[in-house]
Amino acid sequence: MSSCGSVHAPESWVQNSYPDTSCNFCVIIRPRPHWIRLLFVRRGSLLHQIAGQLIFIFTLSCLVVAAHGQLFTWKITLNSSAFSLMGVAIAIFLGFRINASYDRYWEARKQWGSVLVESRNLARQSLTLLAPSHDARPFVLGLIGFAATMRNQLRGLPNTAQTQGLFSESLTSQITSARSAPTLVLLWLGRWLQECRAKQALEPALAHKMEVSLDGLSLALGSCERIANTPLPFTYSVILHRSAYLYCGLLPFGLVDTIGLMTPLVVTIVSYTFFALESLSDEIEEPFGLAANDLALDAMVAGIDASLREMLGEVRRQHPNRMQT
Amino acid sequence: MSSCGSVHAPESWVQNSYPDTSCNFCVIIRPRPHWIRLLFVRRGSLLHQIAGQLIFIFTLSCLVVAAHGQLFTWKITLNSSAFSLMGVAIAIFLGFRINASYDRYWEARKQWGSVLVESRNLARQSLTLLAPSHDARPFVLGLIGFAATMRNQLRGLPNTAQTQGLFSESLTSQITSARSAPTLVLLWLGRWLQECRAKQALEPALAHKMEVSLDGLSLALGSCERIANTPLPFTYSVILHRSAYLYCGLLPFGLVDTIGLMTPLVVTIVSYTFFALESLSDEIEEPFGLAANDLALDAMVAGIDASLREMLGEVRRQHPNRMQT
Amino acid sequence: MSSCGSVHAPESWVQNSYPDTSCNFCVIIRPRPHWIRLLFVRRGSLLHQIAGQLIFIFTLSCLVVAAHGQLFTWKITLNSSAFSLMGVAIAIFLGFRINASYDRYWEARKQWGSVLVESRNLARQSLTLLAPSHDARPFVLGLIGFAATMRNQLRGLPNTAQTQGLFSESLTSQITSARSAPTLVLLWLGRWLQECRAKQALEPALAHKMEVSLDGLSLALGSCERIANTPLPFTYSVILHRSAYLYCGLLPFGLVDTIGLMTPLVVTIVSYTFFALESLSDEIEEPFGLAANDLALDAMVAGIDASLREMLGEVRRQHPNRMQT
Amino acid sequence: MSSCGSVHAPESWVQNSYPDTSCNFCVIIRPRPHWIRLLFVRRGSLLHQIAGQLIFIFTLSCLVVAAHGQLFTWKITLNSSAFSLMGVAIAIFLGFRINASYDRYWEARKQWGSVLVESRNLARQSLTLLAPSHDARPFVLGLIGFAATMRNQLRGLPNTAQTQGLFSESLTSQITSARSAPTLVLLWLGRWLQECRAKQALEPALAHKMEVSLDGLSLALGSCERIANTPLPFTYSVILHRSAYLYCGLLPFGLVDTIGLMTPLVVTIVSYTFFALESLSDEIEEPFGLAANDLALDAMVAGIDASLREMLGEVRRQHPNRMQT
Amino acid sequence: MSSCGSVHAPESWVQNSYPDTSCNFCVIIRPRPHWIRLLFVRRGSLLHQIAGQLIFIFTLSCLVVAAHGQLFTWKITLNSSAFSLMGVAIAIFLGFRINASYDRYWEARKQWGSVLVESRNLARQSLTLLAPSHDARPFVLGLIGFAATMRNQLRGLPNTAQTQGLFSESLTSQITSARSAPTLVLLWLGRWLQECRAKQALEPALAHKMEVSLDGLSLALGSCERIANTPLPFTYSVILHRSAYLYCGLLPFGLVDTIGLMTPLVVTIVSYTFFALESLSDEIEEPFGLAANDLALDAMVAGIDASLREMLGEVRRQHPNRMQT
Repeated sequence: MSSCGSVHAPESWVQNSYPDTSCNFCVIIRPRPHWIRLLFVRRGSLLHQIAGQLIFIFTLSCLVVAAHGQLFTWKITLNSSAFSLMGVAIAIFLGFRINASYDRYWEARKQWGSVLVESRNLARQSLTLLAPSHDARPFVLGLIGFAATMRNQLRGLPNTAQTQGLFSESLTSQITSARSAPTLVLLWLGRWLQECRAKQALEPALAHKMEVSLDGLSLALGSCERIANTPLPFTYSVILHRSAYLYCGLLPFGLVDTIGLMTPLVVTIVSYTFFALESLSDEIEEPFGLAANDLALDAMVAGIDASLREMLGEVRRQHPNRMQT
Repeated sequence: MSSCGSVHAPESWVQNSYPDTSCNFCVIIRPRPHWIRLLFVRRGSLLHQIAGQLIFIFTLSCLVVAAHGQLFTWKITLNSSAFSLMGVAIAIFLGFRINASYDRYWEARKQWGSVLVESRNLARQSLTLLAPSHDARPFVLGLIGFAATMRNQLRGLPNTAQTQGLFSESLTSQITSARSAPTLVLLWLGRWLQECRAKQALEPALAHKMEVSLDGLSLALGSCERIANTPLPFTYSVILHRSAYLYCGLLPFGLVDTIGLMTPLVVTIVSYTFFALESLSDEIEEPFGLAANDLALDAMVAGIDASLREMLGEVRRQHPNRMQT
Repeated sequence: MSSCGSVHAPESWVQNSYPDTSCNFCVIIRPRPHWIRLLFVRRGSLLHQIAGQLIFIFTLSCLVVAAHGQLFTWKITLNSSAFSLMGVAIAIFLGFRINASYDRYWEARKQWGSVLVESRNLARQSLTLLAPSHDARPFVLGLIGFAATMRNQLRGLPNTAQTQGLFSESLTSQITSARSAPTLVLLWLGRWLQECRAKQALEPALAHKMEVSLDGLSLALGSCERIANTPLPFTYSVILHRSAYLYCGLLPFGLVDTIGLMTPLVVTIVSYTFFALESLSDEIEEPFGLAANDLALDAMVAGIDASLREMLGEVRRQHPNRMQT
Repeated sequence: MSSCGSVHAPESWVQNSYPDTSCNFCVIIRPRPHWIRLLFVRRGSLLHQIAGQLIFIFTLSCLVVAAHGQLFTWKITLNSSAFSLMGVAIAIFLGFRINASYDRYWEARKQWGSVLVESRNLARQSLTLLAPSHDARPFVLGLIGFAATMRNQLRGLPNTAQTQGLFSESLTSQITSARSAPTLVLLWLGRWLQECRAKQALEPALAHKMEVSLDGLSLALGSCERIANTPLPFTYSVILHRSAYLYCGLLPFGLVDTIGLMTPLVVTIVSYTFFALESLSDEIEEPFGLAANDLALDAMVAGIDASLREMLGEVRRQHPNRMQT
Repeated sequence: MSSCGSVHAPESWVQNSYPDTSCNFCVIIRPRPHWIRLLFVRRGSLLHQIAGQLIFIFTLSCLVVAAHGQLFTWKITLNSSAFSLMGVAIAIFLGFRINASYDRYWEARKQWGSVLVESRNLARQSLTLLAPSHDARPFVLGLIGFAATMRNQLRGLPNTAQTQGLFSESLTSQITSARSAPTLVLLWLGRWLQECRAKQALEPALAHKMEVSLDGLSLALGSCERIANTPLPFTYSVILHRSAYLYCGLLPFGLVDTIGLMTPLVVTIVSYTFFALESLSDEIEEPFGLAANDLALDAMVAGIDASLREMLGEVRRQHPNRMQT
């Protein structure tokens, strides 16, 4: 999502200007940073988040070197063999944790992809399975509104934020104070299809198909709620956090006798790897937030809006600098 | 589920007060504990569960240091190289075990999410696929009752605990002494749909769709039964337990010659990592219990109740401190 | 499955006494063994299976110590650094193998869970989708018979073992000498539904749904056949077996110079971890056997029997000591 | 598949003798080789495939020992610490590669299992969903033919190899020179169902169900084509191959100073583990070949043939030595 | 895809010459390179991409050896024990990253396989589910066009590149400037089926089935968009990149004291393994590009074209050197 860095201007996209929706359709051949530049980029390095810890560890290491590993007059007798025992274990457990966090992040992204796919399916089907005389526009706008209210719920925004023009007035007033607005939007979509069947504009066998896609939206909603509400077991984070910090805090004592003045450098590098990965884990474990590595929900809602309106045949000026993204 | 810590007051939620159902709809941007605070929190640290083992290991290490690694007059000739052989193996196997336990936990959570999603689907469909004159309320209440009896079965509670007002009297008496109450509730839901078809209020092609969602509930039930009844192979736990404890018990003998007085500290830290992760594994391996890291089944049932009643249009006072959660 | 340890009395459960079916419905809060007791339990420790190897390794280590690492007059010049090279590699590969074996075990368990779920679905649907005047009992008994013949096939038992009263006589004689009896039972179930349609007792759109569940049973059968007939690549087992045994066999020569008299103890502990995990891998890799950690197929068939008969409304005395399980 | 070792006699099974199809139905309790025997079996040890490399490494090690680690008069200054750095990395990457290869192997096996399952489903449905007066035999034989042509395509055999009596003459001539014969067989099966519908012998709602199973066969075909045509990234294999061989080639220089005469033994054992696992990875990565650990496609096609003919009620003599397999 | 190396001649395949489509149907028994040749192949070795880094590291190592590990007159006091701490951690994290990248690559391949499978399904169904008098050719050509526009979008090509003769003129003009051309093609396919239903040439229950396959195409499109637009968290790449380069940059200082002149060789080998794997990860993480290890989208589109035209019965000369591929 890095190419969508300039996305967070939500007030603009409701006016149909969509400065950032090209993200969903941009080409994938983006220039990869040179390996040297990658060593020094600040964006995404998480340095500002773990600067405090690293400075603490660096200072501690310098003190340990200055004191030759002695606490007052008492020599701390640690050597590196004691640390190779623990280091591997921590690395393995941290590896599993990163994996689990990334799985959560990627599943959340899949569910939002599923919202796009099922919205397109339902839009296509409302345009082709209903009797041609039936105007499907309210239904398609309601699908866009579902994505918007789902984002609002996951981010704790007001239910009707950025949904102007998508819902009928009665639906708007109904969801304003609802606990779960997207569920009520789904119910409204189902009611709209019910009216179509009542007017003989939709065959039962085809209504069955469209219900399955509504279930798909419901599944995406429920899955995102699950990810948002059930973090990794808190205890797991606590154990790994403590083990990693104790390890890095004792490490200078273990290294000072053999590598001397290089101790602060090595300890800081090791700490950077462990702390940064732990911090990244924390960040992508809850993928619906606003941190740099979280999902760009605004861009995704805008992408759904653009794709569905295009299917309705609503012309929109081509984004001028699409290729520069 | 940590934000739902105050949930366990099941006697209150049947009276429609739902103090904790906001959990299913709470915002996800929760304050992350500061890294220093995370080092000292007691909640979730599992310390009270493994305190005995850690004190034992610490005492043993002190004795080993005091005796200079001698058992009476016989020097125990162990060094750290012997332990690096074993430590990595145990870490790898423990890593796989945590992974397998977490998969069980996460699958259980998914199945409960599936109960929420399929209940919403069936509620929506009962409100929109049936002839509009048909009152779907008994069916929707039955769906809530399914979730409640499923929780009761998984926790070993009486079948009808906290199901007042959800079932008809005849169904209540039928499930009171049943082996598998949720299955009978599903059968009742199927019978209710059968009556709708008999009254021409439901097309067969749409009844097909609703049966698929009933199958989804049945799948979630069967999957949770599977997780509850089939633990990880007991032998696996035994082997890892023994290896980890023997390793930590012999470790002081291996370290005393090189790190001397620091032995108790290092051994206790290593033991904390291993014992705590093993204990957490044990806890989340059976996710339907009442331990701190287990699933908040009560909150989930209450969330289903709230979501389905909202679809029925039953007004309920907004939870006052929703944003503070 | 450990709580179902007393299950293997198959001759009793056909007489409707079901001493062990409570396993499918038992509560999950079972007392966890104390950590000290877990160090000494004999059940599940696999000690009897690998006793020979461990005694061999222990004796070898003692001889190596007695000979001071010399073979006759020739000193075997091994040290621990040579072993740390190999030990990690073997641990990693063994970890992957355990993972693959456990996946097979867990997938087999899932397929049997799927048999339970689809049987319940079909039972429910035969009771609610057919015209109410139609007696679904033969169909439901046929479903129980499917599970029984599937177990018989996977365990190499006679096709009709423990299926008394479940099949019609003609079906019984047909499957007695069949290659794949469960497939013929599925065909019979399909034929039974065909007759219902012929009598206008089942709508085609709903017959479609029931066929999907029959396909689910067919999938579970095919998947279990796949697991039973396609072990892990034999070569993989051979390579790991040899590497682990060569490693443990040479280990005493590598340790004797540094840890002396402790060599037999350390070598035996390392060997126990490797041999026991390899043995457990072997055991759960083929989960349909009769070993301690294999799946309790008899209990699962009995659970299906109990659940489906309850749906038929057939009263059965409550298992007296259900709560003690 | 090891119990099906005698399968490769494809010319015999078309004459309905099926010497090996019992493999699909054999019991799973096969005697496990004794742990000592497992150390010396030649089958599956891959020794003949990596003998060249091992002899090369062994000879090199002996030369290194003889020269005391000197290249002419220049001492190669390597020690084991340099190797522990690399060894773990290579083991981890090799572990991931074995995992990925095994996933390909297992997915291919699953797809063939899916062919069996969907063929049985379609056979059952053609026998029960069509009007009873309709003879489904040509359709069922066509299903067997689909499996046979799929195997032919994956193995590069002529399209019509071993399909005598399964197809009509016109279909046979059509597929003889086809690029993708199985696709045309599926098209023919679809046409056959089209004729049934034209004759009012198949309801549209049930035809829908059968189309879904035809899609299942199409999916299995496409998935096997995908596995066959898209190997693991070639670069991945190259990097691992080089790293492993450079590692083993330099290892004697690193060990000779500490373990002296034992160098050739240890180096050869380490090399055996690495080379054999890499070779096995290569073998199961492309699971449709004819190597010892590849899938027994002939046996699987024969199993499908036997199972489907049994459903047609075609009597066949019981395989006499079924239990000895 | 390595056997399809000569594919990139897209201008030729639109003229029905298909020089490379045999790739989808080629035999799988391809000669495996000899183990010695595999050590020296240049293709796929990524050497040209990481040559700069390797030369830098090699030069640095030589300088370190020449200076005996001193920076001017200041001895850099590093030894190998400090590196074994970090090396394992980096290897584990890199292993997880390669795994995640490969999962992206393989999922992208699966989605394209799904396009092939669903296109075949829809082609078969358009030929057999519609009334026989209906000409399905425009629909089948539209399916080919869907795959072509999907590739165009993922590679950033003009929407109508290489789609001559596949679309009607009105559709062509509609998609030329579309944001998401494949979505509009799907909409057109849905409209085509709508007309069939309007002419009573397609039963609703069977139209349901075909809509499900259109949804399958929509899912494949959305999934590929997801993979293209959401890379691995950028921070993850940055952290691993830095850790690996710092590690390799400091390694010569740590090794020079013990292995002296061999330092440049060992450091370069270790760096090759880490850098090459990181570079490969980068490459397959975005699988829709034009790098050597990326997916051969042109060949896949051509394969879909060939397979679907064969189903239409359009004769095409057999590719002459099919067996040599």
